[in-house]
Amino acid sequence: MTEVTREDCVARDASDPLASFRSEFVLPEGVIYLDGNSLGVLPARTAAHLEHVVTQEWGQGLIRSWNDAGWFDKPRTLGDRVGGLIGAGPGQVVVCDSTSVNVFKALSAALGLRPGRDVVVGDRDNFPTDLYMMQGATGTLGGYEHRLIWADGPELADVLDERVAAVVLTHVDYRTGRMYDMAAVTAQVQAAGALMIWDLAHSVGALPVDLDGCGVDLAIGCTYKYVNGGPGAPAFIYVASRHQDSASQPLSGWHGHAEPFAFTPDYAPAPGITRFLVGTPHLLSYAGLESSLEIWDRVDLASLRAKSLALTDLFIELVEARVGEHVEVVTPRDHAVRGSQVSLRHEDGYAPMQALIERGVIGDFRAPDLMRFGFTPLYVGYADVWDAVDVLTDILTTEVWREPRYATRHAVT
Amino acid sequence: MTEVTREDCVARDASDPLASFRSEFVLPEGVIYLDGNSLGVLPARTAAHLEHVVTQEWGQGLIRSWNDAGWFDKPRTLGDRVGGLIGAGPGQVVVCDSTSVNVFKALSAALGLRPGRDVVVGDRDNFPTDLYMMQGATGTLGGYEHRLIWADGPELADVLDERVAAVVLTHVDYRTGRMYDMAAVTAQVQAAGALMIWDLAHSVGALPVDLDGCGVDLAIGCTYKYVNGGPGAPAFIYVASRHQDSASQPLSGWHGHAEPFAFTPDYAPAPGITRFLVGTPHLLSYAGLESSLEIWDRVDLASLRAKSLALTDLFIELVEARVGEHVEVVTPRDHAVRGSQVSLRHEDGYAPMQALIERGVIGDFRAPDLMRFGFTPLYVGYADVWDAVDVLTDILTTEVWREPRYATRHAVT
Repeated sequence: MTEVTREDCVARDASDPLASFRSEFVLPEGVIYLDGNSLGVLPARTAAHLEHVVTQEWGQGLIRSWNDAGWFDKPRTLGDRVGGLIGAGPGQVVVCDSTSVNVFKALSAALGLRPGRDVVVGDRDNFPTDLYMMQGATGTLGGYEHRLIWADGPELADVLDERVAAVVLTHVDYRTGRMYDMAAVTAQVQAAGALMIWDLAHSVGALPVDLDGCGVDLAIGCTYKYVNGGPGAPAFIYVASRHQDSASQPLSGWHGHAEPFAFTPDYAPAPGITRFLVGTPHLLSYAGLESSLEIWDRVDLASLRAKSLALTDLFIELVEARVGEHVEVVTPRDHAVRGSQVSLRHEDGYAPMQALIERGVIGDFRAPDLMRFGFTPLYVGYADVWDAVDVLTDILTTEVWREPRYATRHAVT
Repeated sequence: MTEVTREDCVARDASDPLASFRSEFVLPEGVIYLDGNSLGVLPARTAAHLEHVVTQEWGQGLIRSWNDAGWFDKPRTLGDRVGGLIGAGPGQVVVCDSTSVNVFKALSAALGLRPGRDVVVGDRDNFPTDLYMMQGATGTLGGYEHRLIWADGPELADVLDERVAAVVLTHVDYRTGRMYDMAAVTAQVQAAGALMIWDLAHSVGALPVDLDGCGVDLAIGCTYKYVNGGPGAPAFIYVASRHQDSASQPLSGWHGHAEPFAFTPDYAPAPGITRFLVGTPHLLSYAGLESSLEIWDRVDLASLRAKSLALTDLFIELVEARVGEHVEVVTPRDHAVRGSQVSLRHEDGYAPMQALIERGVIGDFRAPDLMRFGFTPLYVGYADVWDAVDVLTDILTTEVWREPRYATRHAVT
């Protein structure tokens, strides 16, 4: 195979149907940003929208903006727009709280919908907060058994039986980038009588998702990665319409009440998805998400997916050709099971990533030994991929990463 | 008693030691804002700080800001600064989540600290979300009895016994403005072997609070009212140092883990107050709070309290003199039990408040029949009080509020 040249990559950028989106984002000078799977970049329109919300809606509208600026309905109106990215029809998604809190709500609701079943299933290698929240939710209830699956361990078929109430899995693995077959796994779980909860943290805005089409029961996810909602942007929860009116969750706050301004002493859940709301929405953070959704409303997700696969294919090809002896590509080659990231295993991982960041190629490290690179098709191009691998090649072949300063650990890795 | 004149009020504003703070806030033209107890006004410095956080920390710093801009520590650093407003020494407060979610955490932790006790006590007239979250938290655990107190009902002494695990009360009542004696009630509850949880929603930034001095066990509160943190600004939770390492709470997310970036599958709580964190902080909303704390760090709370009482005294005096036959002052005259608001009972309440808002005097309505006015000493003056009562007098004496359009209900009241 002839090696891809930088000129080839520049040519592909020139004919990229998504190329026009790049100007919608602020990309710092001298940076190739391959960490949009951890924190998406700033949309160009966000600062002005935030200023409007702060100076006009808050500053001038004050308390009246709860009605006049639609603040009260933001969890639902933004929820429906996020729903458009994950195949969820209206009235099934609310934007609220953090992903962790929403795992707690989703799992609690699922357990309530499956009385008499006393097992929850998770993936040992899931992003840990999902496991931690499972432990918290079932620990409070008491009497639940946890069963874990993992890549070389028990498979889903080994642990599913009539005792399983719910299965919590992340659609795309945060470490390896491996993607589950959502339709097949959901059907398998439901065939055992259990409910399926998907974490979409590394799916929403990364690739098309079809929650309604797959018959998913519940889902949660975040908006600060591929969706560009801003640091700590509010998360979301999806509950299929068929479950909503029989579902309950213990974080029974006033924004989930049937009549929040009647101020009655007893909780009565609102109809529909609203009962999954808790407290007052963090509106400045919602403003960041609202701004990025102005872009996402116009994105064709099939084109997004095609470019995502092309970018990760290119990265894998160049890495194997140029530094194949230094790293192992952990992410699957098979498109059907690949998300929008590529992870490389390296004997150290941490130090080479620090050296990359110092030279403007930003990815991240995931313990114990993975260098992780996220590919966000709206603002990363083919020449970026080529340039990133070029810097990586220099760092790995010169072994500059062995300099002691690259070993200094930060609080957040 | 000679009636106070507008000139008297102007003179008092001129000699007000807190007068210089007024220029720190944005006050819309033609508005007298007496709803800072629901949503505080915009600090003048906030828009620029938000822009910095958005364009520099997020836009340019990107993922690096978790370390470089101190994002990871914001819940603790801002928590300590909020602690300065409520008499909490360092390391006992974190800023996080919504007030409702923090009630759930605080009550769950308290119940865990009092095993074998199976009663929780609340105030029937507390802000409902506190009651709703009590119902949610104990409903999940099962086997708990709720006992309620209220103004003309059972008193605390009637319901306290060796079965009571925790008491949840709001320090200043959101409807009446009545304030509990924090030291005495805390001691009474603890004498019965129970833990005391205070909701400081209407106290923080309204008057001095001395959590450490009163020996309080746990507390929660919000920062979007008197603290001016912005719409839906993040809430906070206080856990006294002596309880922290034996306390646990079921929302066991990764930001509360001892080693969040070790990505281990089992939850292990961080030492100290950090274990009360859950998911990724909503950083744009934190930026609003950080900006307002730049002002609050300089406020003398004794002066604040003196002016607060002077403003509410003046409002009560003028209301009684001018519209005493139309409304009943519900808020206590006794300074020792008054917060920083005054509530007036009126046969309708809703419509007169809408007429007031139309004429630029913004308070709010609380079902079934209360007109509520909050007094925020940093940006409300004595002449504002006089002018507000003047408009109220016109509305009530002309009965203009009976026009049908004022009866139209908004979603948020």
